[in-house]
Amino acid sequence: MTTNKAPHRLYLHENEMPTRWYNLRAGMKELPDPMLLPDGTPAQEEHLYPVFCKALAHQELDDETEFVDIPDEVLDIYKVYRPAPLCRAYDLENYLETPARIYYKFEGNNTSGSHKLNSAVAQAYYAKAEGLKGITTETGAGQWGTALAEAAKYFGLDLIVYMVKVSAEQKPFRKIMMETFDASVVASPSDTTNVGRAILEADPSNSGSLGTAISEAVETAVTTEGYRYVLGSVLNQVLLHQSIIGLETEIALERLGEYPDVIVGCAGGGSNLGGLIAPFMRDKIAGKRDVRIVASEPASCPSLTRGRYAYDFCDTGKTTPLARMYTLGCGFKPSANHAGGLRYHGMSPILSKLYHDGYMEAVAVEQSVVFEAAKLFARLETILPAPESSHAIKVAIDEAVRCRESGEEKTILFGLTGTGYFDLNAYDQHNKGTMSDYVPTDEDLERSLSGLPPIAGVSQ
Amino acid sequence: MTTNKAPHRLYLHENEMPTRWYNLRAGMKELPDPMLLPDGTPAQEEHLYPVFCKALAHQELDDETEFVDIPDEVLDIYKVYRPAPLCRAYDLENYLETPARIYYKFEGNNTSGSHKLNSAVAQAYYAKAEGLKGITTETGAGQWGTALAEAAKYFGLDLIVYMVKVSAEQKPFRKIMMETFDASVVASPSDTTNVGRAILEADPSNSGSLGTAISEAVETAVTTEGYRYVLGSVLNQVLLHQSIIGLETEIALERLGEYPDVIVGCAGGGSNLGGLIAPFMRDKIAGKRDVRIVASEPASCPSLTRGRYAYDFCDTGKTTPLARMYTLGCGFKPSANHAGGLRYHGMSPILSKLYHDGYMEAVAVEQSVVFEAAKLFARLETILPAPESSHAIKVAIDEAVRCRESGEEKTILFGLTGTGYFDLNAYDQHNKGTMSDYVPTDEDLERSLSGLPPIAGVSQ
Repeated sequence: MTTNKAPHRLYLHENEMPTRWYNLRAGMKELPDPMLLPDGTPAQEEHLYPVFCKALAHQELDDETEFVDIPDEVLDIYKVYRPAPLCRAYDLENYLETPARIYYKFEGNNTSGSHKLNSAVAQAYYAKAEGLKGITTETGAGQWGTALAEAAKYFGLDLIVYMVKVSAEQKPFRKIMMETFDASVVASPSDTTNVGRAILEADPSNSGSLGTAISEAVETAVTTEGYRYVLGSVLNQVLLHQSIIGLETEIALERLGEYPDVIVGCAGGGSNLGGLIAPFMRDKIAGKRDVRIVASEPASCPSLTRGRYAYDFCDTGKTTPLARMYTLGCGFKPSANHAGGLRYHGMSPILSKLYHDGYMEAVAVEQSVVFEAAKLFARLETILPAPESSHAIKVAIDEAVRCRESGEEKTILFGLTGTGYFDLNAYDQHNKGTMSDYVPTDEDLERSLSGLPPIAGVSQ
Repeated sequence: MTTNKAPHRLYLHENEMPTRWYNLRAGMKELPDPMLLPDGTPAQEEHLYPVFCKALAHQELDDETEFVDIPDEVLDIYKVYRPAPLCRAYDLENYLETPARIYYKFEGNNTSGSHKLNSAVAQAYYAKAEGLKGITTETGAGQWGTALAEAAKYFGLDLIVYMVKVSAEQKPFRKIMMETFDASVVASPSDTTNVGRAILEADPSNSGSLGTAISEAVETAVTTEGYRYVLGSVLNQVLLHQSIIGLETEIALERLGEYPDVIVGCAGGGSNLGGLIAPFMRDKIAGKRDVRIVASEPASCPSLTRGRYAYDFCDTGKTTPLARMYTLGCGFKPSANHAGGLRYHGMSPILSKLYHDGYMEAVAVEQSVVFEAAKLFARLETILPAPESSHAIKVAIDEAVRCRESGEEKTILFGLTGTGYFDLNAYDQHNKGTMSDYVPTDEDLERSLSGLPPIAGVSQ
């Protein structure tokens, strides 16, 4: 293929930005298994109304509409910080002495510092359009909470954020940032909900998890007049909104005469990876192009590589409907030792299905080598990567090194989801050599997976 | 004038980036007064060799070469993070209901988070090209130190950073960031230099100042084999390197059919302002265009608005040559209360001369209103601005409000020098209403100005 000389940073003009999201499910040969209510029957749109606003409940279950128009109000905000650049990592290629061409889509050019704003803006818009007063959510590393605080403030919505306690303690600046956008930040588990009180009673020193924070945020949303709950990953609607990442990337690569041979994305709940791969996975499913897609997940929370494909709750409090996904069990407690996000027990049902059906690969990486890759990247590319994003950097580097060994001139694309300005304590640990790796034992996983709910007709 | 529809973010292609810096002095009708040695004679290039590497000593005194070629090695790094975007603040305009068009040049898209990298890369390059082993510098808020740490690491130079003690304590993450790029960070005043030891002996709780940190860095450079000193602002060479900001802005505005009526920049030592205005000041001096140029400085450290145009040392330890500039006296101790940078006692001799000759205006603003402007900006433009940059935001907003009142459709341009991710403690103070303003009394200034050195033939 003839490729055009890529600039270090390729920015599309705002007029070239896609005006429709791509709904990955509409192109899948086999759909993900349906979301189930506690009684085992499939959830209908109206079942979700107590939790999600109507437009988002519709998007959550819509597996037919392939392209969804992005509302003008959302486009207006996207244009303040998008299109995001597609970057060519020339210096990294030179350093690695690889014949591969390495591209990355950088989503950190906004105050929240990550791709999370793409869905935050959409969800806040729909909530406001429906006349809601406020929204609730959870946040782990804090990127989603910050993004939603920005979006909520923009649309004039109140926001309550349940922040995983260990993250709130490790990252006080994240809390200040959310408060700067007038959000209320509550460390989770908290005494503001029944779920939180029960957990604290059983274990007063519980340091929290995304699963628990979700339970608290959902409880507050369904019990507070004019409030609904919003979530930053895992859900179908979130992958829909994040498809803007992949759609822009597709346009930029086309301009360069490029098509990726390998796409790497970090995977916690799957929002970035699902968005980045959307148009490329469409091609792959349709048999138009062959591209390897690799999810990079932390060895400390390895849902794809060591979890089970089963129906599970999305939260620790077991209050949500059941989704079939790769899961470590909703009772899985990620190590507080892990420096970044990507601490969720499950994985997007869409990505889980695609992985289960062989459309994707997955690799688990330990954090010390991830931070080595992060520091190398920062030095060469003048972007301080978030620990989450650095999981993708590490795996992309490994791919490029294999190209050096094989001599293959592959085109490698990875998602750089955000910046690491709030993760400097973790960098400090790595600088000082005090960072340790943590990998759950088989017994740990067996224990947390033993709590999976029995579902009639499904092997759990 | 017919203007083209500006995108929210205008990025030039890297091939459009200027390949020469503009030397503002070469176009000035009257040159700044010469730098003097302690004995009152003008400094020659070779007098500077013990402190600066030769190429930079030459740039420091060269007032004839109008355009200076940017070395290829420097351009290669510039292209990793430049051209920087010229942004149109549509949402801010709408919010203010102003007929003015507000543009800002955003320099925060690199790991150091500010424009400082433009000169850091250049200075590190010349130091390496001369075969030096290492460099020393000072840093206040930490942006310069971080930028230089990046640049030094890139070129394989050792780096010792003297960081103002109060900043080191308020901003531990800045230190970690510099260490991530393998810099040695020393809180100043320190016991590693004669100057530092003398200050600590007289005042063990001294919280440091840029002036003191400069003294320490210079002392270490001139007493360590293979080391030289580099500085992030004030100097002529720094303004030269920072002219890339203004030159890119000029190209982007031309494409839009725009020319600024007012340019606003924050001013501490003057590196950003001097760089931003370079080509526009050239036009103004040549009588080609009329543009108002406004320096925005903190009321707590008001060198232009309340200082004296006099010969003074560049450092507190009185070890540097003397420069004629607006100064508060090299013994001036900025309030630890002030949240951001811009804490230097003097001002770029070039800008001082231009201000003295009536080519520029200056406004002093208090920090609480600056943070109000910063938060408004963050909400509308999805960039969390540095406190320093926010001084320019505040004054640009004031200009836009005056346009609303007068109905004038002015074109306002300001410099957004960087991001505020390391300033969240200050945002927290503002959020909580605990931020206070500090303005030195006339007696404070009289006291620090009384120490100006007597210079034969110059009214001090």
